[in-house]
Amino acid sequence: MKWEEIDQQACSVARALSVLGERWTLLIVRDAFRGTRRFDEFQRSLGVTRHRLAERLRKLVDEGVLTRVAYMDRPTRYEYRLTRKGLALYPVLMTLSQWGDDWMDDGNGPPTHYRHSLCGHHTRPVLTCAECSQPLRPEEVSAQPGQVLTAYLDFLRSEGEEVPEAGELAREAARYWGENRSEQG
Amino acid sequence: MKWEEIDQQACSVARALSVLGERWTLLIVRDAFRGTRRFDEFQRSLGVTRHRLAERLRKLVDEGVLTRVAYMDRPTRYEYRLTRKGLALYPVLMTLSQWGDDWMDDGNGPPTHYRHSLCGHHTRPVLTCAECSQPLRPEEVSAQPGQVLTAYLDFLRSEGEEVPEAGELAREAARYWGENRSEQG
Repeated sequence: MKWEEIDQQACSVARALSVLGERWTLLIVRDAFRGTRRFDEFQRSLGVTRHRLAERLRKLVDEGVLTRVAYMDRPTRYEYRLTRKGLALYPVLMTLSQWGDDWMDDGNGPPTHYRHSLCGHHTRPVLTCAECSQPLRPEEVSAQPGQVLTAYLDFLRSEGEEVPEAGELAREAARYWGENRSEQG
Repeated sequence: MKWEEIDQQACSVARALSVLGERWTLLIVRDAFRGTRRFDEFQRSLGVTRHRLAERLRKLVDEGVLTRVAYMDRPTRYEYRLTRKGLALYPVLMTLSQWGDDWMDDGNGPPTHYRHSLCGHHTRPVLTCAECSQPLRPEEVSAQPGQVLTAYLDFLRSEGEEVPEAGELAREAARYWGENRSEQG
């Protein structure tokens, strides 16, 4: 599989990474959350080449994570703002930041503290269950197939075939579903 | 700045991405959470080239996210298991997955449901504050500099210099701290 095809999987992690999973992209999103908006500001912040930065920004705009807004006429200049889809990446950035704090500390403490205005404390983000509010631990969560994976798993079972590895399963399930739908159409 | 230098920032997001922010890496971690352990299994799952896979696995082992364990003698064969540092990436994967469910649905519902054995419900992960248990919203959280950034910001103020963009600030603060410490040593 080519990297460019990873969005063609029945897997939300793969689909998210098809937008976010390349060098620089999540650092651009980090900067956007910190208020960076203009091309030159991103460039100074990251020190990435202008070509690479332009490519990454274009992708984020195409995917609806950032929106391009004119802030000046003659010449027209644009700035980049987080959309609702972009703002929804906040938990991804905060969990990455927490992991960096916990595991990649250089011995000088967290680079940044986060103050939660609602309670007035320095906060630490915890991933919890929307149903019972308890922290989510991997050993207490089990993955269950949705309808696309279920349809393909049923097909494999009816053919007596083995279930392939995670990524291949997600890929083949999406392909099977697509073909099935088009046959019905 | 080169990509290889992004870990040299006083920023936990940048440090985390120095390990995780390349193509394929988080998909390998996803597979590891689903029980994939052996080189050939990862390869079948991802369809990535063997060369690229070997490089990514080596990096994850070097960084302590995976550990390499012999499971066979003559010839010795190794498998890859998540360490505690690797297991601590669970919230990162779950928030990515949730974002993919919410924003990159193909119209066929979530590819995977997650059942929380503690409460018995299909769960939805919510990022909450460890202090007050309320959901963390970006507009209610403010970033405050830790000691490394504070030292550099004090220096900039004493010199009457402007505060640079996010990434440059994080980079220069780490450099300043490093030089300051070595002068004291």
